[in-house]
Amino acid sequence: MSHLIGKSGFVVRQIPRADQSSIDDLSRFGVATVHEAQGRKGLLSSRLRPIQQGVCVSGTAVTVSVAPGDNWMFHVAVEQCQQGDFLVVAPTSPCTDGYFGDLLATSLKARGVRALVIDAGVRDTQTLREMGFAVWSSAVHAQGTVKEVLGSVNLPIICAGQLINAGDVIVADDDGVVVVRHAELAPVLDATRKRADLEEQKRVRLANGELGLDIYDMRGRLAEKGLTYVDRLEEIEH
Amino acid sequence: MSHLIGKSGFVVRQIPRADQSSIDDLSRFGVATVHEAQGRKGLLSSRLRPIQQGVCVSGTAVTVSVAPGDNWMFHVAVEQCQQGDFLVVAPTSPCTDGYFGDLLATSLKARGVRALVIDAGVRDTQTLREMGFAVWSSAVHAQGTVKEVLGSVNLPIICAGQLINAGDVIVADDDGVVVVRHAELAPVLDATRKRADLEEQKRVRLANGELGLDIYDMRGRLAEKGLTYVDRLEEIEH
Amino acid sequence: MSHLIGKSGFVVRQIPRADQSSIDDLSRFGVATVHEAQGRKGLLSSRLRPIQQGVCVSGTAVTVSVAPGDNWMFHVAVEQCQQGDFLVVAPTSPCTDGYFGDLLATSLKARGVRALVIDAGVRDTQTLREMGFAVWSSAVHAQGTVKEVLGSVNLPIICAGQLINAGDVIVADDDGVVVVRHAELAPVLDATRKRADLEEQKRVRLANGELGLDIYDMRGRLAEKGLTYVDRLEEIEH
Amino acid sequence: MSHLIGKSGFVVRQIPRADQSSIDDLSRFGVATVHEAQGRKGLLSSRLRPIQQGVCVSGTAVTVSVAPGDNWMFHVAVEQCQQGDFLVVAPTSPCTDGYFGDLLATSLKARGVRALVIDAGVRDTQTLREMGFAVWSSAVHAQGTVKEVLGSVNLPIICAGQLINAGDVIVADDDGVVVVRHAELAPVLDATRKRADLEEQKRVRLANGELGLDIYDMRGRLAEKGLTYVDRLEEIEH
Amino acid sequence: MSHLIGKSGFVVRQIPRADQSSIDDLSRFGVATVHEAQGRKGLLSSRLRPIQQGVCVSGTAVTVSVAPGDNWMFHVAVEQCQQGDFLVVAPTSPCTDGYFGDLLATSLKARGVRALVIDAGVRDTQTLREMGFAVWSSAVHAQGTVKEVLGSVNLPIICAGQLINAGDVIVADDDGVVVVRHAELAPVLDATRKRADLEEQKRVRLANGELGLDIYDMRGRLAEKGLTYVDRLEEIEH
Amino acid sequence: MSHLIGKSGFVVRQIPRADQSSIDDLSRFGVATVHEAQGRKGLLSSRLRPIQQGVCVSGTAVTVSVAPGDNWMFHVAVEQCQQGDFLVVAPTSPCTDGYFGDLLATSLKARGVRALVIDAGVRDTQTLREMGFAVWSSAVHAQGTVKEVLGSVNLPIICAGQLINAGDVIVADDDGVVVVRHAELAPVLDATRKRADLEEQKRVRLANGELGLDIYDMRGRLAEKGLTYVDRLEEIEH
Repeated sequence: MSHLIGKSGFVVRQIPRADQSSIDDLSRFGVATVHEAQGRKGLLSSRLRPIQQGVCVSGTAVTVSVAPGDNWMFHVAVEQCQQGDFLVVAPTSPCTDGYFGDLLATSLKARGVRALVIDAGVRDTQTLREMGFAVWSSAVHAQGTVKEVLGSVNLPIICAGQLINAGDVIVADDDGVVVVRHAELAPVLDATRKRADLEEQKRVRLANGELGLDIYDMRGRLAEKGLTYVDRLEEIEH
Repeated sequence: MSHLIGKSGFVVRQIPRADQSSIDDLSRFGVATVHEAQGRKGLLSSRLRPIQQGVCVSGTAVTVSVAPGDNWMFHVAVEQCQQGDFLVVAPTSPCTDGYFGDLLATSLKARGVRALVIDAGVRDTQTLREMGFAVWSSAVHAQGTVKEVLGSVNLPIICAGQLINAGDVIVADDDGVVVVRHAELAPVLDATRKRADLEEQKRVRLANGELGLDIYDMRGRLAEKGLTYVDRLEEIEH
Repeated sequence: MSHLIGKSGFVVRQIPRADQSSIDDLSRFGVATVHEAQGRKGLLSSRLRPIQQGVCVSGTAVTVSVAPGDNWMFHVAVEQCQQGDFLVVAPTSPCTDGYFGDLLATSLKARGVRALVIDAGVRDTQTLREMGFAVWSSAVHAQGTVKEVLGSVNLPIICAGQLINAGDVIVADDDGVVVVRHAELAPVLDATRKRADLEEQKRVRLANGELGLDIYDMRGRLAEKGLTYVDRLEEIEH
Repeated sequence: MSHLIGKSGFVVRQIPRADQSSIDDLSRFGVATVHEAQGRKGLLSSRLRPIQQGVCVSGTAVTVSVAPGDNWMFHVAVEQCQQGDFLVVAPTSPCTDGYFGDLLATSLKARGVRALVIDAGVRDTQTLREMGFAVWSSAVHAQGTVKEVLGSVNLPIICAGQLINAGDVIVADDDGVVVVRHAELAPVLDATRKRADLEEQKRVRLANGELGLDIYDMRGRLAEKGLTYVDRLEEIEH
Repeated sequence: MSHLIGKSGFVVRQIPRADQSSIDDLSRFGVATVHEAQGRKGLLSSRLRPIQQGVCVSGTAVTVSVAPGDNWMFHVAVEQCQQGDFLVVAPTSPCTDGYFGDLLATSLKARGVRALVIDAGVRDTQTLREMGFAVWSSAVHAQGTVKEVLGSVNLPIICAGQLINAGDVIVADDDGVVVVRHAELAPVLDATRKRADLEEQKRVRLANGELGLDIYDMRGRLAEKGLTYVDRLEEIEH
Repeated sequence: MSHLIGKSGFVVRQIPRADQSSIDDLSRFGVATVHEAQGRKGLLSSRLRPIQQGVCVSGTAVTVSVAPGDNWMFHVAVEQCQQGDFLVVAPTSPCTDGYFGDLLATSLKARGVRALVIDAGVRDTQTLREMGFAVWSSAVHAQGTVKEVLGSVNLPIICAGQLINAGDVIVADDDGVVVVRHAELAPVLDATRKRADLEEQKRVRLANGELGLDIYDMRGRLAEKGLTYVDRLEEIEH
């Protein structure tokens, strides 16, 4: 499908949507754990930052490609959204304009959309926080946009360094944003649960004062690599 | 007056100050709406960020040009400030130093100054938040400054990409900072009110589930431009 | 000791630790005041930002040098930490990976470590805030790291533009991070107290409406430099 | 194939390679024209800059995913390269280390590889220029790398904001880097030729003093949008 | 005229043009000397870099405001240009798109325009160098633009941190870009000549081994400020 | 000596200077090889870029700490320079001003100084290239500086992320800048020669088509880590 990345002028009406309860479950674990559990892939760039704090959301990606300074496709996208969706937007070249504000958020909320990820700017951030509409963006700027140039809805896009297909699952929290492939949701959820359990066990041991050096049995390998302990700095030779 | 931009060594004592209740009114609407209402001009760069959250302030610009790493002109500026003023400061070349802290804020607050916009760094941010003195800056840094080099007060300056004249009206909130020309305050306030009313009407319709596509009558124009709907991704040809 | 900066493969077990009550005292004054009091040196780059708000912490530096994308040395460092320590970490080349999360924080907390400064990324930020473990970092990113390459613990490092020796004292708050040399703690604490007292006296006078121009007796020197007051902008000649 | 993006530990031996003379032809037109001709898609980020000037190269992408600070996979990749290939490398998180220098270039040149695109650092740049081995990178840094962590060769990668599949065609010149999908080479080459011809015709007319306003028949549409001509600035009302 | 900054939809036909031989003279001295001679004002941001090396150009500013990703106004601007003009372009929000390439350069060259300054991207850079058309830009990117949104021609604009009026004089070389106000050309040229003469005299003395400390008589003032000479580092007390 | 970093108001007259022919020898190998040979330490940040191409210079560091926007200490430093020295300058907070131009270069050249490294801006770059005075800087900007604030000469400084002591040896080329400790020059030169010899041997083998995989005997270790070869992408399972 890579020939469709960057193609404009199309809207795809039907996208795969994974089992909602599985999607919801993912948000209990947070981005870092999901990312680890799926083999450290799918993480979007750290330039995406939340406008709120302490919120973790997951949902089905509805993808939008927009021209710089032009938010026309948002209106087209709203109609394609359903309960539980997560809007994911990327401009075709870097742009900090405020593509999205409280009116669009009102419209998306009315359709049950949970959140927005956009590799560009947003505005009305105080109102968005008050509305409880979660947003991850690469800028906050009041700069308005026009409605002149076509983009696309539900075609694959590259957003903040990751390929996002419509129907993929997005998880976002204070640490950032990760994409889970639609077809991999079940095994990733399973791996995430297992990892979270393991982490919990380790947390108890670490809280009790056990050392990672011992829990993970690292001392031998560190010595093999040549790690040398000295009592004082002066013992290290030139 | 453009020959005065960047000129140093002068302080202007008398500046125009607009009707305070009109200035106050602007802060009820927020930066994004004011910026739209005045025809999308006057927005400062998104590198200016608030050190607090949920605050919207408006006031009369007292402008200050400072040398890099030198905050001497702040002290000169304080004397020129009155109740309802908004200090706007730009260094003559990029600088992240902490020009401004709680002592200067105490002095400004004693004169009734409301807030500071600075395209450079500030410090004592926790105390500033506790004092309720609002600040928008391009950096937070504890780095101190010297008092050796003259700048100017109340001459026109370029701050974060916008020309600011002493007497212009500044509005700032979580979305950023916008300047309204002194002579345009009345019509801009009027246009802002109208826009806010229109937005409120649209908000109600969108909250009720109406689509922007229909409210703004976009479907015909989208079709003219060639927007094509398909049911599935596979229908889009190579 | 400069030949040891950047050297890897060593862990130093014994480091100087200053009097804890003196270290604790420093945190009452904040970074900006300490930095001024010690003659404006030792301030780390403003790219280090706190993940929490309103917290000031001081402690003894345990230094860690890590390879890009590799957090192995964190586990080695934990064992060298004691009550009252402050972990300071720098990668050998710029990296935004999330080296540090809640498990390592649990382990450090169990040993009485107070906080982390890292010129790289961290993750699990919401949990870290809930745990009350303070962090200053140059990025927030969920990206995980490997455990393959040796670094060093308690050798001198360059972190965010400053040399940090194990045993130096670190102070960090909302304004940033400053290092106080181990041998200079007593005089710096003394100077900080004096400066804070002086600032308090000035704060009262400024709050009462006195001007810095008069308190600091600046008018004569400004006039000597040629500062010119005019009533109106138009009086300034071409 | 999107589940393979970011997967590590695999090397794919057989990749599609398009007709070499078609690939070569593309380099006659330059990145800007190819990018336009294929519908403005496939352009990599402008942070990629050439280390040389005046060179346009095209070739078949051999893709490499590497860990931050680890260039082990380069050596694995060399063996998979053939005459006419173009190495395309992306780190799994942002890194400026110098992954690539004159030794690897010597090895690649011996196998007929034409050039390198890397969203990270390179070194030995003066020698690379003398060797005539073309490079586009996001940094120049002498920082060396280790050989400890597996990545992948010839799996799909995201490089500087674009998906690159092994076998896609890369074109790079002073303006940047563009990817043409393997399956689209023939139509894109055709469209590029046509566009270049059209541009040549326009160039002649423009050189003769004809205006774009007339050649492209823009005056009517500009007037419709409301473009207003005035003789002097003063004629524009408040 | 500050209410016109950022206003769109207007083209001003008549602009002041200063004496061409005076404008030409300025280019003999270079940006740094002109900037100093006019009192250190008018320098554009250092993010503007030349695409060529060793070229100094001066000319009359024709100003263009463009929307992000939209170069329509370039075509409108060409018609307003005359022999000796210098096109100065700013987008209304940050954009790296390649607004300008060899076709527009051909058209401008046919009208005698000398160069372009743009706070955005350009493309076809190799061809532009071959044509001898000088460009200063903040990005090089092949990304194309659309022609849908009106901007303005010959209204005042803010470009890279400076106000530029149509008719102002622009000087650009390897060090950057400076604006000289139309009304100040004669005195600035005079001051520039004098400064260049003085610099030449100093250059001869410095080349002969005289020290700036003596030529500028700095020793006394340095001593007053407290500069202390020691023979060895160890003499500086804690 | 770390208490002296950042201290201002002092000039140290006598600094250690290593054997000049050893220093000269280092420049034959280039920054990347020296950096590797001394154990991958001492490399300055990649934000330092040369203003010229194809030049490698080595020399004895004369260190200068300057205030933002203030180049007074340059004049003090010139007097402390001798034949074969390399000026290394860092501002006390980030600054892009053009601290250095052709007059200072003339003065330094008259004393036999070879080059400048500055973590700030320079100007007159075209003239500097014509003079053959080599410069590495983090910015090019015509912005002038004042002479009001003391810094230091020949105290230890942090420049672009590395500690530099007066008397250390600096090597700089197109890849960047590296510092070699004064006391380590002899062993580093020795290690550099050996490494260069080894690299030459490898270069011959690689040019003959041998693979790094075989020369460095990597295949076994790659297999142990689990590297898997497949013929086609489709063979990699979900």
